Order: sequence, then C-alpha cells, then structure tokens
Amino acid sequence: MKLVTFAAAGKERLGVVDAKRGILDLNKASAALPDNMIAFIEGGDAALAEAKKVVSAATDSAGWLPLASTKLYAPIPHPRKNIFCIGRNYKAHIEEGARARNIPVKFPPVPEIFSKPFTTVIGPEDNVLRHAKNTDQLDYEVELAIVIGKIALDVPAAKAMDYIFGYTVFNDVTARDKQQAHGQWFKGKSFDTFGPMGPSITTKDEFGDPSGHRITLRVNGETRQDSNTSDLLFGIPAIIEAVCASLTLHPGDVIATGTPSGVALGMTPQKFLNVGDVMEAEVEGVGVLRNKVVA
Amino acid sequence: MKLVTFAAAGKERLGVVDAKRGILDLNKASAALPDNMIAFIEGGDAALAEAKKVVSAATDSAGWLPLASTKLYAPIPHPRKNIFCIGRNYKAHIEEGARARNIPVKFPPVPEIFSKPFTTVIGPEDNVLRHAKNTDQLDYEVELAIVIGKIALDVPAAKAMDYIFGYTVFNDVTARDKQQAHGQWFKGKSFDTFGPMGPSITTKDEFGDPSGHRITLRVNGETRQDSNTSDLLFGIPAIIEAVCASLTLHPGDVIATGTPSGVALGMTPQKFLNVGDVMEAEVEGVGVLRNKVVA
Repeated sequence: MKLVTFAAAGKERLGVVDAKRGILDLNKASAALPDNMIAFIEGGDAALAEAKKVVSAATDSAGWLPLASTKLYAPIPHPRKNIFCIGRNYKAHIEEGARARNIPVKFPPVPEIFSKPFTTVIGPEDNVLRHAKNTDQLDYEVELAIVIGKIALDVPAAKAMDYIFGYTVFNDVTARDKQQAHGQWFKGKSFDTFGPMGPSITTKDEFGDPSGHRITLRVNGETRQDSNTSDLLFGIPAIIEAVCASLTLHPGDVIATGTPSGVALGMTPQKFLNVGDVMEAEVEGVGVLRNKVVA
Repeated sequence: MKLVTFAAAGKERLGVVDAKRGILDLNKASAALPDNMIAFIEGGDAALAEAKKVVSAATDSAGWLPLASTKLYAPIPHPRKNIFCIGRNYKAHIEEGARARNIPVKFPPVPEIFSKPFTTVIGPEDNVLRHAKNTDQLDYEVELAIVIGKIALDVPAAKAMDYIFGYTVFNDVTARDKQQAHGQWFKGKSFDTFGPMGPSITTKDEFGDPSGHRITLRVNGETRQDSNTSDLLFGIPAIIEAVCASLTLHPGDVIATGTPSGVALGMTPQKFLNVGDVMEAEVEGVGVLRNKVVA
C-alpha cells in the first residue's frame, strides 16, 4: 500500500494511492481511520487492516482524487523528532568524498548519525531554496528513508524489521561548504527546505526486502547517482539497532539511510546546484521525488 | 519573571514562580493566558504583560503551590525541534578535550552545532539513566540555554537579542565513548534522559546581560565546573546569528550554548558518572538543576 499526505481545501489529509484510480481520503472513507499519517502509523496493524478493507471495498465513484493534479505534502510533514540521517553509508560515496577533500579513505566502523529539523521538510514538487547568501555549494543526496512503525528501544538487528512501518524517498540536500566549515554536519544539512520527502510511503509488506532496490538521482534529466540499496555499508537492520540503542524511537520517526556516489562534491568539475535545476530522486518501489531549485 | 512547567493532577501546567509565595497557575489565574509554555511564548509581549499584571494582582490566598513540594517538568517538556547545542565554546574546555584525546588544541572558527531529540529532555529532580549497556563514560556538561521568543531567520548578531524569550539551565549529558566512536556527536549526546532542563525559564528582562553569569556544576557536592558566561568563545548574539542563518527558529526552540572546563573526560584520573551520583547544574540568575544517576 502507498500512503500520502495530500491537500484538501488547504488542509493536510491522509490518503491511500491507487495507480489507476487516484487518491482516496482514508478518514472520509472510514471514520475509524485518522486524518493524519502519524496517527495512522500509531494505529498499527489494525489501522492497516482497516485501510486495506476500505480500499478493496471502494467503488470507482468513491471520491478518488486525480493523482496528477492533487497537491501532495511530505508524507510526514511535521516529524516529532528531527529526521535521523546516516552519513557515509555507500562505499563509493565515501571514496568520492575523501577524494574531493583530499583526505584518506576510511570507512566508519559504526554508523555516523546526524539530524535535520522539521523546518527542512518539504513535499514533492515543492521548491528547494538556493540560499545563495549562505552557500556556494548546494548539493543533492538521494536516500532510502525508513519510517518507524512502533516504539523502539534497544532493538537488536535481528528483530529490527518488526519496527518498520514503511519506506519513502528522502533528498538530503546539503550546503557542502557549511557542512565542512562547522565541523559537525548539522548546520550544512539543516537549511530551510533541505529535506524533500516523498512522494509516498510504501508499506513494508509492499516494499519487500529493502536490499536490492535501485536508487537514482537525476539533475535536469542527467543521471548523477545510480546505485542499489544492496551496496549499503550498514544495512537497514544494523541502522535501526544503532539509532535506537539507548534512544527511544516513536511511530513516524524517519531515518534516512545515506546516499550513494555521484554527488556534485565528488564530480570533476564539481557541478553544484543552481536556480532552475530540477532534481528527481527515485527509489525503486516508492517513486520519484521531484524538486526544483529556486532563488 | 521565572516561569515553570509544573504538575497538577498529573498534567503539565504553566506557572509563574514567586520566591516567597510559590507557584501560581497562570491559566487558572487568567483565562486570557494559555496553559503551556510554548503557547505562552508565542503570546509575545502581550502574554508577558498579562502575566505580570496577574502576579502583581494575586493575593496570598490566590492558590500558590509550595515550591519545595510541587513536581516540576522541564520548562519546555516537548520541544518541537531537537534541542540545538553548541559544541566546544569555552576555551578552557576546548583545551581539556584536546589534552584528553591527545590531539592539537584548535578553536573552531565558527560555532559547531549538533542536536538532541526531545526524548533526552527531563526535568529537575528527574533521574538520568546510567545506560551501562551502551556507555562506560557517562559525563556531564552544564550549559546556559537560550529560549527563543520569536520566529527568527537570518537575524544578524546586532539584532539577535530581540529574538530571545529567556534563559534556562541545560545539562548536556554525554556518553563520551559513543560521542567519539560515531564520528558525529549526535549519538553519544542523544541517549534517553541525556537532556535535563530547568528548573525554570528566567525571562530576559530579569536575567539581564547574558554575559557575566557564573556557571557551575557539582557532583555529590564536589565542584567540577566553575566558570562564567563571559568566557564564551561565541557569545549569545553570535550563536543566534549562526544557528538561524538559513534556518527558521520558532518560539520555544532551545539553544544550549556550550559547557566550560571541568568535565569528567578532562580530569586526571577521569571521574565519569556512576549510579547514585547527583549532579547540580547551576547558572546564576536561573537556579539549580538537580538530577541523580540511576540504573
């Protein structure tokens, strides 16, 4: 099942996507279902079962909204914690980063974790701000993001998959100069609009094994990143184990799992983003997350 | 004025503190005032003026609760963004950290910023968990914390003081081994209960110039940290300018401004925290934030 947060009369609503019929407002279709994504995730298996029932019972005249012309927000527009992000988690990306900064290649022994506040989060088709005043090096990073389904604390990798609700696409937009200047990565990662998310959340049953999904990013149609989640240095279970060690995760928390090689920083010459550039971040099994850079 | 979030019938309520009379429930005293701290801060100057009026009009029989026996929560128990934290911001602390890790002393050219999720936040007298499974090096860090009063974006240092609501005490409890192992500091800083905050927020008019306040931390009565906010490498205005560059701050956002020397990591021998230890973090003009370490 693919779930979205969409706009109806300017308000955020929870919807389910059917490729042929469009978007169905779940709370309108069943009063037993909530009107927002986090409450739905908190509803657990019962909410998922009810949503499946609603979708299979829905007629073609049940009020499906057209996919192409309905405004989508980020699936989780207001995450309650900052987005958790894993740094340097694809080997080829670690190598390109070290090359670009003229430092030795060194793979992290444990996941490197940082965060991005909710003020970074934007939805599909929303614009990323160029922030020319504060960066000369605007870069993109397509990532597979995990959406947590249940309260998780000290969960071992072997049981981690039970705590996942689903997956989405995240673009960890970065001001490379500020990432480096501030020592800690937080600042260069946390400019307003630096967290495009979406277009939908694919539930874990539909997404299947999170390994083996192609992950790509195009700028103005040119493929810049093209890899596969099977190349992750730390896989999904290891990431969850590391993040929730002594740190309680809640339903709706989002963990972006790192980006493959092909970022602008690693190119010769470096092709950082500028006003007018269009990014299309895609993970097989979720969809395309498209965002334009504007002044 | 000193403001607290306190418990009444198990619920969080907004209160004002009078040293002689105790805590007054502001929303009970005036229906024009909200019942929680973030809404009060959002109320701006009008809410502050109404609160002052209420306090000066309150009789001794207006329902003041006893300070000593009323349970306090963190003044902002559920921050909407992770707590913003400034790393290495007192010169003597930078020197002790470099010594302990046998690396050259190097002062950061710009503030180093990281974050701690709301799951770290606890109130005065709440317990800090030892997390023995995940760290052998539990450490303390007393900090002066800024509470933001208004939406702030790209505010220059010269105007930054206008965006402050008040100040509180923050203890940036840290798992030193995990801080170092994960490269980025986030993980070692973000264990559950690693963010004691309080006991109150002192409004900026009462706190006065944020420079020149004594800042201390005692463990079981032994003074470990004893410095002054006048020793900050980056002062309050510079910190706000750095944090809100291209990043929108909201009322109730909290920025912890860094810790002075005297942490356990820097001692010879290193005296990390253990079960039973009691920390008292204090900033002149706010008060004492007391938390015990438990298993």
